[in-house]
Amino acid sequence: MKFVRNPWHSRHAPSTFLSRGRVVASPERPERAAVLEAAALRLGLEPVDARRFGDEAILAVHTRDYLDFLATAYSRWRELEDAGPEVVPNVHPVRETASRPAHPVGLAGWYMADTACPIGPGTFEAALGSAYSALTAAELLQAGEDAVYALCRPPGHHAAADRAGGFCYLNNTAIAAAWLAARRGRVAVLDIDVHHGNGTQAIFWRSPSVLTLSIHVDPTVFYPFYSGYAHELGEGEGKGTNRNLPLPLGSGDGPWLVALDEALAILGTFAPAVVVVALGLDVHEEDPFRAMRVTCAGLAEAGRRIGRLPQPMLLVQEGGYPQAGLGRSLEAFLAGFRDGRRERQD
Amino acid sequence: MKFVRNPWHSRHAPSTFLSRGRVVASPERPERAAVLEAAALRLGLEPVDARRFGDEAILAVHTRDYLDFLATAYSRWRELEDAGPEVVPNVHPVRETASRPAHPVGLAGWYMADTACPIGPGTFEAALGSAYSALTAAELLQAGEDAVYALCRPPGHHAAADRAGGFCYLNNTAIAAAWLAARRGRVAVLDIDVHHGNGTQAIFWRSPSVLTLSIHVDPTVFYPFYSGYAHELGEGEGKGTNRNLPLPLGSGDGPWLVALDEALAILGTFAPAVVVVALGLDVHEEDPFRAMRVTCAGLAEAGRRIGRLPQPMLLVQEGGYPQAGLGRSLEAFLAGFRDGRRERQD
Repeated sequence: MKFVRNPWHSRHAPSTFLSRGRVVASPERPERAAVLEAAALRLGLEPVDARRFGDEAILAVHTRDYLDFLATAYSRWRELEDAGPEVVPNVHPVRETASRPAHPVGLAGWYMADTACPIGPGTFEAALGSAYSALTAAELLQAGEDAVYALCRPPGHHAAADRAGGFCYLNNTAIAAAWLAARRGRVAVLDIDVHHGNGTQAIFWRSPSVLTLSIHVDPTVFYPFYSGYAHELGEGEGKGTNRNLPLPLGSGDGPWLVALDEALAILGTFAPAVVVVALGLDVHEEDPFRAMRVTCAGLAEAGRRIGRLPQPMLLVQEGGYPQAGLGRSLEAFLAGFRDGRRERQD
Repeated sequence: MKFVRNPWHSRHAPSTFLSRGRVVASPERPERAAVLEAAALRLGLEPVDARRFGDEAILAVHTRDYLDFLATAYSRWRELEDAGPEVVPNVHPVRETASRPAHPVGLAGWYMADTACPIGPGTFEAALGSAYSALTAAELLQAGEDAVYALCRPPGHHAAADRAGGFCYLNNTAIAAAWLAARRGRVAVLDIDVHHGNGTQAIFWRSPSVLTLSIHVDPTVFYPFYSGYAHELGEGEGKGTNRNLPLPLGSGDGPWLVALDEALAILGTFAPAVVVVALGLDVHEEDPFRAMRVTCAGLAEAGRRIGRLPQPMLLVQEGGYPQAGLGRSLEAFLAGFRDGRRERQD
């Protein structure tokens, strides 16, 4: 099994994270990718560096104006008097008619949903590289691979068509899913990150060809707070192709695997040609967010059940933050996944 | 001429202000009220302490859930693990369907538009006192005073029905305007603060009985960025009763007074029974925002032109931040205003 690395990821090293009224260190640090890569190599996965793509594949998901914002935000910010070292929004358009302004501070609030996605000098390059990693992996799948793991950093599932959020800038999962849907037809996205995949949901909200499934902590009490509720089903032609399976804070292996089975049943009915897994490892009991209590055994079992699916499969790295067992949690999932793949062939 | 003081204002002393990616000191400090009070006393205005009111007058403008949020946000915040000293939002609902969560961090983003309105232990009491100041002043007007100055701190014009923003929590101007409209019929709000009165606009967006006029720096390049554009006219029955007169950054007395004359002409056509002036002194050339270049002479002339209006008049303090000439800028406006009142009687 191959995995794709983002050679540019370390150019993004965020320093400013306003959380709960304090500026703290961001857990979305370059070391994450190093730890995950080491785990993939330990398991014997074969590394492939991401190649560059043109903008078309990204523009299938994101808007041109948003991409321009990401490309220019940092340099425009640094021209501001008294600007901090990274672009951080401090004012936001909300719930009534709003016009897009021209000032860097106004644009930051327009295109960034929260303070967890600061833009530094290398953020855009790193985010592009992360999207390229997902696309390179999708291309390998299209070339005949059965399953590929895209080690995307920064993550993507909180990024909407024209908005960054929650450590995410470009929605790697959605970009790969759209690319695959254009070539293979129906695609299912199965998001098992501990946070709702709100960006992915928003991007495919009206799409009948991409099923979006997300298992996550109840947003009533957990980020991203404003979406991820069970009543959100999509709209228009996409009505019914979005399903959220929120779980109580602190849920462990048992309820998590029950929700996974429910998601897999919905996925089976949809009968996609390809499956994209938004692979968050922050469900793990030792993750700094401490939001779920999934064990390595639980992750291995989830990997196995997902691995048994008949479709070609893209695994896209989402969350999962520095902790002693981060590498082991990826190993557990991937080892289970490989077992599932083998069982399927037997 | 009487002026109303908020005896509780100093309980609100914000310390956290994330701006341009840095945490800086808030310019909306208790000393503002002391400086403004001294200026009013120097001019011979007669002080009156605000009295308490029931919630009804506030609920004519704000929602019950928002008032409950303001009342409980600080104590709920302090129960959070790792919470900072004040409630500061760090994630926001944006431009798609959103549900209201239950978690303090999610609620902060739901009810607070930006990082300029932190909620500390005494914020709610101070904000109530500021609304009471505007109401006490409105009551004095109703009892026969010709003009009253409400020294409101914290300010109010960026607060919408259910959202704090830009140093503002309760919209003192809107609360007084709604109270007066219920008793006198048509009311005009003339907002001359350097920032667009976005909260007041939103509150009366569909109201045909309250005309909202705002002269301010072009929001394309200045807070609040997302509204304050000339094309915003109100909707439904309120269509045509909102008018914005944006001016270029750095505008001085000349263009500012031309815009004021335009606003006064619109006001004259509307023929209100009462006029409420949202009195920002941050148009002054020495204001820390440095956004306009209005002089004390310009403020005096504006006071005179406004003072000549035939209607009973409520002056409600909005912005204007610590600088050597803050007190003098209030004196200039009020002295001009008094001259205008006298000229009208001659």
